[in-house]
Amino acid sequence: MMTDINKGENNHQSSTDNSPERDHDSREQDKAERHKARQQKVKAAVDAKIAQAQTEKGVLLVLTGNGKGKSTGGFGNITRAVGHGKKAAVVQFIKGNWPCGERAVLEKVGVAFHVMGTGFTWETQDKAKDTAAAQSAWEAAETLLKDDSIDIILLDELTYMVSYHYIELERVLEALKNRPPMQHVIITGRACHRAIIELADTVSEVQPIKHAFEAGVKAQIGFDY
Amino acid sequence: MMTDINKGENNHQSSTDNSPERDHDSREQDKAERHKARQQKVKAAVDAKIAQAQTEKGVLLVLTGNGKGKSTGGFGNITRAVGHGKKAAVVQFIKGNWPCGERAVLEKVGVAFHVMGTGFTWETQDKAKDTAAAQSAWEAAETLLKDDSIDIILLDELTYMVSYHYIELERVLEALKNRPPMQHVIITGRACHRAIIELADTVSEVQPIKHAFEAGVKAQIGFDY
Repeated sequence: MMTDINKGENNHQSSTDNSPERDHDSREQDKAERHKARQQKVKAAVDAKIAQAQTEKGVLLVLTGNGKGKSTGGFGNITRAVGHGKKAAVVQFIKGNWPCGERAVLEKVGVAFHVMGTGFTWETQDKAKDTAAAQSAWEAAETLLKDDSIDIILLDELTYMVSYHYIELERVLEALKNRPPMQHVIITGRACHRAIIELADTVSEVQPIKHAFEAGVKAQIGFDY
Repeated sequence: MMTDINKGENNHQSSTDNSPERDHDSREQDKAERHKARQQKVKAAVDAKIAQAQTEKGVLLVLTGNGKGKSTGGFGNITRAVGHGKKAAVVQFIKGNWPCGERAVLEKVGVAFHVMGTGFTWETQDKAKDTAAAQSAWEAAETLLKDDSIDIILLDELTYMVSYHYIELERVLEALKNRPPMQHVIITGRACHRAIIELADTVSEVQPIKHAFEAGVKAQIGFDY
């Protein structure tokens, strides 16, 4: 079994032996053997890395950056966990009022959802209302973060709540630090606060190389939301 | 409705008015009004962007880079699509023989899976066998890429098949270019070939800021695989 970090270490480089006295068959056989030798080296390196990584613990994963793939990454991880019989929960911060495809699938297989549901802050334009909604959603998150029967929690778009000062950073850090030791937590959203990044075990920054929206393609149901 | 690219444009900056002659209530009211004015500006900018993006088309999305979140991002998008009643299919390249949590959930809700199933290339150490398996999986992908009843296809870890020359780049590009115009395709994997990136509509590079595995945490079922 591999972690994602191991993949693609096999940078296969094609090599040829052009000496005229060698026939095609033996050249092919040499290539196959060299390929095998290279793969054995890669396997030994990967196996050594795996042997060294023996700790089991709840991982705090942060998916941040400005590109597409953060929330879907979180939901994909929840789908994976549920498929292995894990108990999962999702808290969605600043999720709008449109229907959520992930929720339709995942609630059916037992994932608990708590949706803040006020929409984006520039839609409501009401700071007091948004703050109250954020804090109520955060209380739901805190309850989950104390419940060791929950194997994995997605805190979708939490980063914005901290950036806008709707939820206190210290309160978030405390709840994350004191959670059950085997509980995985995934936090998504742009511009994650550096204190959360420091606390996290795994952090990916999803960078937009390009985005269809910038080329005039509208957000499409079932793909973008 | 927002695309991911719109989120987080509201970089709220807290401001205070400390003039001693103003009472606390009127300062708070001023702050709330300034907040509202800022949000209205953000909303106008977002609305203008949305008005300008009117094209509907099948999007080719590439999730590449070395960080955690590419495959889960693809599977999260499939979960979202299925939740909106879309018809989805998955082809998994170099997927190993361990059980796949995503598959357990998504097959139940009608997602067709084709799994190459030979494991990583450094496990098999047999180039001829890997090439045959890759090409067979690619044929399944080609069939899907001609079927306009399929709304969205995940080609998980396809990039490695191109890097290792197991599948011809030209064949991949042709099938992607000639697919049904409304069909979304997601390609995941490290080091995506630049010709596929050029063809894609949306490309995210998932960069590892840090990874638990490097700190000795083992790959855990339901989270890492």
